[in-house]
Amino acid sequence: MTRPNDKSVQALQWTGNSLKVLDQRQLPETTFYDEYRDAAGVTEAIATMRVRGAPAIGIAAAYGAVLSVIRHHAEDPANWRQKVAADMDLLATSRPTAVNLSWALEQMKALLNQPLTNPPAEIIEYAQKIHADDIAANTKMGELGADVLKGAKGVMTHCNTGALATGGYGTALGVIRSAYRRRPINIYAGETRPWLQGARLTVWELAQDSIPVTLCADSAAAWLMKSGAVDWIIVGADRIATNGDTANKIGTYSLAVLAKQHGVKVMVVAPTTTIDWSIESGDQIEIEQRHQSELLPACYIKDDSMVSAWNPVFDVTPVELISALVTERGVILNPAEQGIRGLKDDI
Amino acid sequence: MTRPNDKSVQALQWTGNSLKVLDQRQLPETTFYDEYRDAAGVTEAIATMRVRGAPAIGIAAAYGAVLSVIRHHAEDPANWRQKVAADMDLLATSRPTAVNLSWALEQMKALLNQPLTNPPAEIIEYAQKIHADDIAANTKMGELGADVLKGAKGVMTHCNTGALATGGYGTALGVIRSAYRRRPINIYAGETRPWLQGARLTVWELAQDSIPVTLCADSAAAWLMKSGAVDWIIVGADRIATNGDTANKIGTYSLAVLAKQHGVKVMVVAPTTTIDWSIESGDQIEIEQRHQSELLPACYIKDDSMVSAWNPVFDVTPVELISALVTERGVILNPAEQGIRGLKDDI
Repeated sequence: MTRPNDKSVQALQWTGNSLKVLDQRQLPETTFYDEYRDAAGVTEAIATMRVRGAPAIGIAAAYGAVLSVIRHHAEDPANWRQKVAADMDLLATSRPTAVNLSWALEQMKALLNQPLTNPPAEIIEYAQKIHADDIAANTKMGELGADVLKGAKGVMTHCNTGALATGGYGTALGVIRSAYRRRPINIYAGETRPWLQGARLTVWELAQDSIPVTLCADSAAAWLMKSGAVDWIIVGADRIATNGDTANKIGTYSLAVLAKQHGVKVMVVAPTTTIDWSIESGDQIEIEQRHQSELLPACYIKDDSMVSAWNPVFDVTPVELISALVTERGVILNPAEQGIRGLKDDI
Repeated sequence: MTRPNDKSVQALQWTGNSLKVLDQRQLPETTFYDEYRDAAGVTEAIATMRVRGAPAIGIAAAYGAVLSVIRHHAEDPANWRQKVAADMDLLATSRPTAVNLSWALEQMKALLNQPLTNPPAEIIEYAQKIHADDIAANTKMGELGADVLKGAKGVMTHCNTGALATGGYGTALGVIRSAYRRRPINIYAGETRPWLQGARLTVWELAQDSIPVTLCADSAAAWLMKSGAVDWIIVGADRIATNGDTANKIGTYSLAVLAKQHGVKVMVVAPTTTIDWSIESGDQIEIEQRHQSELLPACYIKDDSMVSAWNPVFDVTPVELISALVTERGVILNPAEQGIRGLKDDI
């Protein structure tokens, strides 16, 4: 199997009989791995957001299922499936809205419904394949995206789309890694309020790989673009509609509008599993609102407060503002003109 | 004299023989006034940023000069001027880059160079006039700006331009107060990274006046504009060039570009003393960079760090993006077309 680059950051490490999870809540000050040996522990790791990022959550859940099979198959080789099913249900509740979580658990269930000669060994292999496939897709997107960037002097990214959010390497941050390995470029990261994924996670990841990065306030991005320092905005995606409209972390739409006004291009990097073929356009994407406490000083969190907060998690960038969509199946330049349906069937 | 509205927030309170300064660093959790009885104390209050906002700093310095005259004139009615001059020099060092600080101290020096029959009484009266004039100008701008806004359903502001930053009432926030008093409108405040003046100060001020306000991340402003919730962006100014280009808190330029793309108008509210007639355009405005530590996690503040921060304090909004400039001498609509030189001579 393809293994993660051992020099790079790993949010998840499979030891053979346990899952080590990097506690991202403590970054960048402290690099601490919790070690889990059962599904309940992995459920806790996901629910408490030690691990975040949809692909990383899915992979963690797959390893959670593995730990369940190892334990219950050893305890009772004849009747282990029922206890594993209960653990899978528990894992599914850890972050109910994460699509990749359900997807990974469905993959594991499908395997377990087949006749198996050595269940623990076979399910370990399958989880590792899910993990390796994610890294392979990211590595491929990294190279494809870097091809598109050629000649760029500066790029800016938003949120964290790196090894911490995925099986390894990253989507948008994978493209930045690949581009930097070919030729040093100036990399800017927006701090990404309110959670500061840029300030806490993205700059940490790049520093771990000895890649220099400059942090700036989200509101400074326009002034940065005006200075001419940035050729491309490179972002990931949480959900892409059939017409190419892209939901991503709040602030992405802002960057895309500002990019257009400054002659800066916009690249979206995401595996094709992010495309939701069931919706035609971004208008159909419901935007989750998070709790006010992520923005408001504590003294305003009360019933009769004069102060409230508007805290959408995502925004939707219309496909017209996207210059390139990079997937593991290939790159679509000017997706508003080209359409993205060609990505639907594997090529 | 015009007195501050006693119901409103006051950053500075003159008691007759002392200056009470609201410690803005502790807002919104704690409302605490420090009381100063000499110029050294006021210097400390400014230097430690208990009081911030250029007009408020100037007024505080004027009262610092008053405290010096009261003390030294009582101690030695024949030879007090030398000690007062030393105190004025000390006050001038408190925030050397604040234009209003030098301006206020020059005003006080000019008075003290005249023959005075009762120096303490006369200088108290003069400082109170500077304070009252600032409030009167703000009140007038508030009404003029509210006239322009008529019909608006929602407005958004940036940073803090209210009573906390001025003698009272505020510039951009004064317009919002006046508009709200006429007819309730929806008010949005950007949190204003990195110092969070919006989240800490603007929403507090409005809540003190029982004016409801909704806070959002700076990066969410574009998505808010797209929702149709905002008709005007209303901001203050730190420096305005002769052609109308406006330097203001970082993020203002971003809002102005986004406003144009969403059919939202932009109002700049500032007294004519903010206009720098010595420079033709915004290109001549030097943008101060603040320390990286305002953005970076502490672990990156070291010599060999892979992570740096780009932290400009201001940006410059080209006059073409400004729909209305509101001053105490009147309003200029479409200043790019009308020009602003008509504001140069008092009318």
